[in-house]
This record gives sequence, structure tokens and C-alpha cells, in this order.
Amino acid sequence: MNELNRITHVNNVSLKEDGKAVVIIDQSLLPNKTEFIELDTPEKMYDAIFHLQVRGAPAIGICAAYCMAVLAQKESEYKAIRGCCGTGVADEVFLENMKRHGEYLKSSRPTAVNLAWAVDRVLMAVRVEIQKARMAGDIRINVGYNRLAEVVRNEAIDIHNEDIEMCKAISEFGLSLLKEGDGILTHCNAGPLATSRYGTALGPILLGKERGMDFKVFADETRPLLQGARLTSYELQLAGVDVTLICDNMASMVMKNGWVQACFVGCDRVAANGDTANKIGTSGVAILAKHYGIPFYVLGPTSTIDMDCATGKDIPIELRDPDEIKNKFYEKSMALEGVKCYNPAFDVTDHELITAIVTEKGICKPPFTDSLKNVTEK
Amino acid sequence: MNELNRITHVNNVSLKEDGKAVVIIDQSLLPNKTEFIELDTPEKMYDAIFHLQVRGAPAIGICAAYCMAVLAQKESEYKAIRGCCGTGVADEVFLENMKRHGEYLKSSRPTAVNLAWAVDRVLMAVRVEIQKARMAGDIRINVGYNRLAEVVRNEAIDIHNEDIEMCKAISEFGLSLLKEGDGILTHCNAGPLATSRYGTALGPILLGKERGMDFKVFADETRPLLQGARLTSYELQLAGVDVTLICDNMASMVMKNGWVQACFVGCDRVAANGDTANKIGTSGVAILAKHYGIPFYVLGPTSTIDMDCATGKDIPIELRDPDEIKNKFYEKSMALEGVKCYNPAFDVTDHELITAIVTEKGICKPPFTDSLKNVTEK
Repeated sequence: MNELNRITHVNNVSLKEDGKAVVIIDQSLLPNKTEFIELDTPEKMYDAIFHLQVRGAPAIGICAAYCMAVLAQKESEYKAIRGCCGTGVADEVFLENMKRHGEYLKSSRPTAVNLAWAVDRVLMAVRVEIQKARMAGDIRINVGYNRLAEVVRNEAIDIHNEDIEMCKAISEFGLSLLKEGDGILTHCNAGPLATSRYGTALGPILLGKERGMDFKVFADETRPLLQGARLTSYELQLAGVDVTLICDNMASMVMKNGWVQACFVGCDRVAANGDTANKIGTSGVAILAKHYGIPFYVLGPTSTIDMDCATGKDIPIELRDPDEIKNKFYEKSMALEGVKCYNPAFDVTDHELITAIVTEKGICKPPFTDSLKNVTEK
Repeated sequence: MNELNRITHVNNVSLKEDGKAVVIIDQSLLPNKTEFIELDTPEKMYDAIFHLQVRGAPAIGICAAYCMAVLAQKESEYKAIRGCCGTGVADEVFLENMKRHGEYLKSSRPTAVNLAWAVDRVLMAVRVEIQKARMAGDIRINVGYNRLAEVVRNEAIDIHNEDIEMCKAISEFGLSLLKEGDGILTHCNAGPLATSRYGTALGPILLGKERGMDFKVFADETRPLLQGARLTSYELQLAGVDVTLICDNMASMVMKNGWVQACFVGCDRVAANGDTANKIGTSGVAILAKHYGIPFYVLGPTSTIDMDCATGKDIPIELRDPDEIKNKFYEKSMALEGVKCYNPAFDVTDHELITAIVTEKGICKPPFTDSLKNVTEK
């Protein structure tokens, strides 16, 4: 397997073959150490999500679904040894146990939408399976632990495969906007580690590379948490892509030098009018791109488009700990203890600064109120 | 002395009363430790400049001049003990010794213009004094070591006082552009530590504070070397100014929030057409300011205006070590070892993005080709 395949086919999150553990890359050790760890107990699963050993909304969702699959199999093995309650009750006990596991996992990062979504989706699959059996026969008949564990496992695999397909489709649409040799500036990390396979913002670059196309990528380091330095430049370097790491404030000069033909960024939430919330600093990149006449593209799944959110003003912005600016990663503090910090995690890029929004269902161009409505209704 | 005076009257660089040492704040220990150190040998002086214990072009110049004064006094004391060569030769020996000291000091940071300028200026004062004596009388008459050491010392004090006056004048002009309660965004550090007394870009803020005016200042941390976090927020916090530290990529959001009424930055070189080289990231701030309709001011002495430089294209940009982006200050590396970095120390802000250039001789407005010519010819 070549270096590129090691990235786009890397199992950043996967189910162990025997189904007894979820295997993840410990992202908290990157870029200095690439280490895979096995999550085989609810406590290890909780800690891995809580301590950001797995991060990126889609990756967390996939991980949580696989965690549920491991725990379902454990329930089934436990029952095989111990036996269980009478006819008709077993399925409900299984469901209750899985709900309890799900609540525990969800509590590890309560604001991560994909986490709750993935847990709820596997639970719904279990409910549907039980319901189907009941509709078909006697209320006392059990589906059985083995079959229900299989349902959970299949649902988790579906969630994973759907994410791969979605990333692939976004990557195809994104790649159609590029030509061989283009310079691309990206901010934060929306690559394979945060999703599955190609990623979103990095997807077109990796898909192009797979087809023998070369690009020159400039990765903003993305203060304060340095996802660009720690993750984006890591992923692209290992994939053999020509990547240059810059501090966020160097983007203007890189653009002025004529080295950038397109900006590709991910998104955390897109309002109905196209205003886009993404990692802090994204709006600045968009303003620079407009000044230098460079197209600015947002890439993300249609699930990120929130049609209930009219404009960016309706998107709440999370404020984070000043310590991330002054102390984190450093050998010693970089500012006086009493100095105030303003540390928003995201900013909103005005839709007027966005050239197009690339989804798995197509490329949305202005006016976004129309084009976004079209892809979300498809 | 109140906190503000501790800043604007702090002797970041001064001559010890007995003339036996230069006393500086060790800037390399800021903001965690405020420590004054004494430089009393050529080696200590060299190291202090080389290791950035004293930094900021004007501050380095003042420091070098005082170093020459200390070394001149040493020469004079040494001679008093040892005696010296015959009549008419002593002055030349003194000058030769001082030139040797000067060359050694200059070699500590060969690209720092103010360092060489200050050393050469005190040497010229010595030459002029010797010449004057010769014009007045016998060629064999010596001015004498004591008098020549006094000449060096006076010239150093003049250099320092002129810098204070210049900073004060810039601060007055800059303050006329502000009103009570204004929000000001600044990038990098052009405050008292880098100059003397008020500084340039921070001067209007500190002068206003001295007069009871309050501003809200946003300090860009200024990656990769964090001068904004380590020095600007330190100076303003100690002066009792309302300062908020932000990562460079948060400037867009702060401006969008309506919190900024003016941007104040320093300058390293200004071309004849107004194009301005300053710390990397300055041009990005200027583009954001234009987008949000916020005035963008450059503050600096007329000595920074280079009329031989037609436009910004003629200003060479220093490229620095990738380690500053990946490793410096950090507990461990923040990117894979092989990852390329682009690390320009400065960028050029197009004159069309600059509202005005504030000098000690007045405020230059567009067209800069005319207004800059006026102040440099004054």
C-alpha cells in the first residue's frame, strides 16, 4: 500500500475483526506518534471521545456507532454464558442495556451532534427490528441477542460506508473545480482523520493525488489548537502531497505571491442563505481571497446545512478557555496571567464572500437561498 | 510612580549612574519575569543584543550607544592606571580602540540598521571632537581620554533623548486620530520596550491613558514569535490599559463585532509611494480593515521612510527558520519533521490600504508620494 493509500484507506476508526473492540488512531498523539489503540470497555470509549483521541464530527459518529456494536456483542456473549429472563422480555432488556450504554457515551461530549445522532440511529435500528418481529408474530417471541447485536453492527457499518460515499462524492465535485498544479489554501482540518477516507475540504486534493494530479497546498496552522499544523500537514505530507505549513497571518502574503488558485475549507453549520460557520479564522481567509480575486469554496455534507437557520446571525458561537491561547502546548505561559483573551472557536463567513458550497449532492452557487434549498430537498 | 508611569518611564535601556554599565530589561524573560541585567563587558553587551535580551530597532540603537559610553569610560580609567603613549597619539589610539569595540558590537546583529547607525554616530562625534581640537591648535595636542569618553556619553544621551522626543511627537499626532473609548487593534509590538518612553504604534494609547483617556485595545498575538502576546499585552496590561489578547485569525471577528474603530501598527520600512513593510500579517490586518471600513494607520519615524525605495516591490523580505513555526516555545514539535514551512518575517502593505502614515513631523495622507516627500524634506 503506497503512502497515499495509507492515508485515504487508513482505518482512523474501525471495528476489530472479532468485533471485540473499536480500533482508533490516537489523534491526541499526532503528529509526533502514530499509535492505534483498542477501545473494548465503555470507560475506554468514553475517555477516547472525551480526551479527543478521536475527533472530527463524522469520525466521532462512526466511532460511537462501532462502540455500540462492540457493547452489543458483549451483551450477547454475556447472555450466552449467564442465560437470561423469560420469553418476550429479553429484547427489551437488550434495548434498555444499549440505551444505558448510549447515554453514557453521549455524555462524553454533549455538544457533538454526530455523536448523539449515531447512537440514536443504532438504537432506532434495534427498535425497528424488535417491532418487525412483533408485527410478524407472537408478542412473546424474541428476536434474540445475537440477531440484535448483528443489527447494531450492520447499522454501524452502514453509517461508516455512507460517510465514505459522501466524502467521495464531495471530493469528486470539489476536484472538478481544480486543475493540475493549482495552489490551494486550506484552514483547520477537514481531512480523513476527521471523517472517513478522503475527508471533505481535503478530499478533492487526495482524490486528485490518487489519480496522479499534483497540487501545491498551503495549510494554515490554525491557532489556537493548531489543527492545521498537527493534522492537515500530517495527512497531506504522508499522502505525498506538496504541502507547506504557514502561520495564519501569512495567508495574505502567500496569496499576494500568486501561489493560491483556490481556497478550500470545511464547515460546521451552513445557514439557509449560505452564511457559513467554520473554525475561527475562516472569515478572514475569505476576505483575503476576495481581495486577491481568488475563489473561496466551502465543502461539507448536506447534513451541515441548517435550513431552520435563516442567516449566520442565528448561529451561536462557542467561546473557549483563554488558556488555549496563553498556555496550551507551550513550555511556559506566553502572556501575563491577568491578560484577558477573546477565544471564539468559530466565526461566520458571509455568504457574499463564498464562491460555491460543495456538497455530496452537487455544487451550490449563489443565490444560495435557492441552490441550498435544491440540494436539501433532493 | 503609578503603573502607567512604570511603563512609559521605565528604563528599558539606561546608563548606570556611575557609567560603569548599561542596564536593560531582559526582554527574553518577558512576560514571565521582569529582570534587569547589567552589561559591563563587551562580551555581555554582544550577547544581550545577539540573544534578543534587548530588541526593537530604536532600543538596540540606544543600547549600543550606551555600551560605547561604558567602554569609552573603561578606556579612560584603564589609561589613568596604566598611562599611555606619547603626545598627539593618544586620541588616535582611543578612536581605534572604540572602533574595534564598535565593530564587535555591530557584528552581534549585522542586519539591524539602528545598531550600526548608533555606533557610527558616536564614533563620528569622537572624530569631530578630535578634529575640532586640531583645527584650534597644535596637531600634537590631545583632547584626552576623559573628554572623549564624555563626548561618547553625551552623544549616547542625545540619541536616547531624541528617540524619546520622536516617540512623543508621533504619539501626539496619533492621539489626535482617536477619541475616548475607541477600540484599537494592533499587530506585533511597537511599544516602550522596542523604543523609548511611549513607543510608536502604542504611543498614542499610552499618551492618552496618561491624560485619563480610556481605550479598548485588541492585541494580535503575532505568530510565530508572539510579540503581541509576550510584549504588547504585557506593556498595556501593566499600564492599566484595557487590553484583550487574540490569535491573529480572530481579528476579522473582532472587527465584525464592531469593536474596532482604528488599527495602529508600526513599520520597518516605508517606500516612497507609501507601501509599508512591517511584521508578517500586517497586510492581512489592513485588508480586513478595508473590508470592514475601519481606518488603518501606520506609525513610525521619518527615518523609516526610504525615498530611494520607489515601491514595496523593492523591499527585500527576510525568510526565517521553519523551526520558529514548528518547534519554538512548544513542549514538543507541532508538525511532522519533514513538513515544509514558509516563514517570512515581514510583509508589505499596499499604500492603497493605508489611511495615513503618522510620523514625528506630521500625519501623511494619500497621495503618499507627495506627503512623504514633504515630511522627509522638512
